[in-house]
Amino acid sequence: MENEKLITEYDTVALDDENNSLVIIDQTKLPGKKEILRLTDIKDIWDAIYLLKVRGAPAIGVAAAIGVYLAAKEIKTEDYEEFYKQFKEAKSYLSSSRPTAVNLFWALDRMDNIVKENKNKSISEIKQLLHNEAVAIREEDIWVCKQIGEFGLTLVKPGDGILTHCNAGQLATVKYGTATAPMYLGHERGYNFKIFADETRPLLQGARLTAYELFESGLDVTLICDNMSATVMKNGWINAIFVGCDRVAANGDAANKIGTSVVATVAKRYNIPFYVCAPTSTIDMNTKTGADIKIEQRPAEEVTEMWYKERMAPKGVKVFNPAFDVTDNDLISGIVTEYGIAKAPYTETLKEIFKRKKNY
Amino acid sequence: MENEKLITEYDTVALDDENNSLVIIDQTKLPGKKEILRLTDIKDIWDAIYLLKVRGAPAIGVAAAIGVYLAAKEIKTEDYEEFYKQFKEAKSYLSSSRPTAVNLFWALDRMDNIVKENKNKSISEIKQLLHNEAVAIREEDIWVCKQIGEFGLTLVKPGDGILTHCNAGQLATVKYGTATAPMYLGHERGYNFKIFADETRPLLQGARLTAYELFESGLDVTLICDNMSATVMKNGWINAIFVGCDRVAANGDAANKIGTSVVATVAKRYNIPFYVCAPTSTIDMNTKTGADIKIEQRPAEEVTEMWYKERMAPKGVKVFNPAFDVTDNDLISGIVTEYGIAKAPYTETLKEIFKRKKNY
Repeated sequence: MENEKLITEYDTVALDDENNSLVIIDQTKLPGKKEILRLTDIKDIWDAIYLLKVRGAPAIGVAAAIGVYLAAKEIKTEDYEEFYKQFKEAKSYLSSSRPTAVNLFWALDRMDNIVKENKNKSISEIKQLLHNEAVAIREEDIWVCKQIGEFGLTLVKPGDGILTHCNAGQLATVKYGTATAPMYLGHERGYNFKIFADETRPLLQGARLTAYELFESGLDVTLICDNMSATVMKNGWINAIFVGCDRVAANGDAANKIGTSVVATVAKRYNIPFYVCAPTSTIDMNTKTGADIKIEQRPAEEVTEMWYKERMAPKGVKVFNPAFDVTDNDLISGIVTEYGIAKAPYTETLKEIFKRKKNY
Repeated sequence: MENEKLITEYDTVALDDENNSLVIIDQTKLPGKKEILRLTDIKDIWDAIYLLKVRGAPAIGVAAAIGVYLAAKEIKTEDYEEFYKQFKEAKSYLSSSRPTAVNLFWALDRMDNIVKENKNKSISEIKQLLHNEAVAIREEDIWVCKQIGEFGLTLVKPGDGILTHCNAGQLATVKYGTATAPMYLGHERGYNFKIFADETRPLLQGARLTAYELFESGLDVTLICDNMSATVMKNGWINAIFVGCDRVAANGDAANKIGTSVVATVAKRYNIPFYVCAPTSTIDMNTKTGADIKIEQRPAEEVTEMWYKERMAPKGVKVFNPAFDVTDNDLISGIVTEYGIAKAPYTETLKEIFKRKKNY
C-alpha cells in the first residue's frame, strides 16, 4: 500500500498544526510531478487557489477555511474589534481568489460566523474555535464523500467494471472524492474494480487527474478517449457508471462536465446503470429543471491549442466549447447523496433526501 | 471563391502532365501550412505515401497509380519483357509504402493489368494506356464521390445543420470526399449548411483535416470536441449526420473511426438521421456482420502524449486505444453509395445496390 500513502498522506488538503501550514498537492504539476506544498503565508494560499494548485469546489472551500484560520492565528491583538477587522480583511482577500466558487464563500462565511457568534470570548479562545471550525469543515467533507462511497458501493459488486468521466475524485475534495468514493472504498475492501476513465476533452481532467489519482492509489484504471465509451460498454466491460455533478435540478436533471450526457445516452443503449454522485450541497431545489441551468461557454483556444505543441485546427475556424451539459433525468438510474440514493421520480425522492438531512 | 481555388486548384491528388509530376497537398503540414508538393521521382512518391503526406484510402490508390505511371514513363527500353520487369519493380516498390492499404494494391493491380493485357502493343502505346488508366482511376474516384454527394444532397435541405466525425473529406479522396461530398455540392449550390466537425480524438483528423478543408473551401464550419455532440443535437442545431466508413458488412453494420457509434447512439436519442457514406468498394458482402470486423488496437502514446507539450496522463497507466468502432445497423438511417441510398433491411437493399452497379 506504498502507493496509497503517496497520495493520501495528507489527503488533498490538510492543516498541519505543528508547522502552521496548509498542506496541498500542487495540481498544476500533475500528472508529471507530485509536489506537496506547505503554505503558511495568506498570499501564497491566495495564489494556490487562484492558480488552481488546489481546485474542485469542496477542496477550495476547505483550503480557504484553513487559510483564513491560519491568517487569524497570526493577528496580534487582544481587542475584538481590531481582530474582527483584520479577520474580515483576510476573509475578503481570500474570497477574491476564485470569485465564482460558491464553496469558497460558504466556507469563509462559516468561519466568519464563528467570530461573530463568539464576541464575548477571548481572542485566543476564538482562534481555537476557528481552528475547530476549519477542521470540522474538512472532516464534514470527508464524511460526505465517505457516505456517498458507502451508498454507491451498494450498487456494484466485486470485480465490476466502472466508467467515470472528468474528475469528481479525491483531488477535487479532501479525500475519496464523490464519483470515485465507491471506487476507493471498494479498493480498501478488496473489490478489484476495473475502472475506465474518460480523458475528458478539452481540459483532460480525466487523463491528468482521475487516471493519476486512481493509478497512484493502486486501483486498476484504464484511460480511454471520450469517444471510446460505446466500445467499452458494448464489449461488456462496464457494469456501472459513476459521475460527479455541478448542479442537480429539482427534477433530477444533472449538469456536469461536457460529455456526461453522451456517456449517459450510450449507457442507456447498453442497459448499464448510470449514477450521479451528488452531495446535497449541489442539489438545488430552486432550479426546476436542467433547462434552467445556464451553461458556461469557454474560449476556443482550449480546444484548438491549449495542450498542443502547435495549433491543431485552422486559424480562424469557429469553435463551440460549452463547459457542461445537462443529463436528462430519464437517463439517470440513481442520484447518490450522503443521505442515501434517490431514484425516479426525482421530484419526490430528492425532497425525501432533504427531509432525511434535516432529521439526521 | 478565392478560398475554394486555394484548396481545389489541384484537388488532393493530381497528375501534372506538363511537368511529369504527381501533385499533392502535404497533409503532414496541415492545418498550420498549406504546401503543394510536385513529385517526379518514385522514391519521393514512396516517401509521400509512407510518411502520410498523402493519406486516405482513395487518395493513396490514385497517388500510387499516378506514381507507377510516372515511373513506367521513364523506363528506357523498347523490349516488352524488360519493360514489364522494370514496371513490376516499380509496382512492388510502391506497394511496400503502406502494406495494409487495400486501395493501393487495387490501383496498382489495375495498372499491372494494362501492361499484361497489351503485350502486343508498342512500349510507347503501353505508356499512353498507363497514362489513361491512371487518369481513369482518378476520374472514377471523383465520379464516385460526386455521386455520393448527389444522393446525399437529396437527404438534406438548404440551411441544414450537419455533423460529421473524423475526416471522410476531400483530403482523403481526390475531390469532394465521401461524407463531405453532400456538403461541397450543397455549398456550390448555395445551400448554406452549418457544419459541425468532431475533432476526433486521439488523432484529431476532424480538427486538423475536416475543419481545415471545409474552412479553406469557405463553408460554415464549427469545430467541437467529440463529447459535445449531445449538446449540439439537443440544441436543435443538427438536421443530419454524414460519416464515412472503413468497411460496411452485408447486414449494414459499419466500421468507421472510433467514436462514430457514439454519435449514432446520441443521434437516435434526438431523432436525427444518421447516414453512412460508403463507396461500394468499402461494402464487403463477405463480411456477415460487424462482429466479424477485427478492430485495430493502436499505441497508448497516441492518447497520452502524441500532440502534447508534455505527457498528459500518468506514466505507466493502462490505455485502451481502438482505432475504429462498429455502428450497428439499427442506428443507421441510410447507407449512401455511388449507386443510390440503401435503407433497412440492409441485407436486401445492399444486394440491390450491387445489382445496380453491375447493370450500370
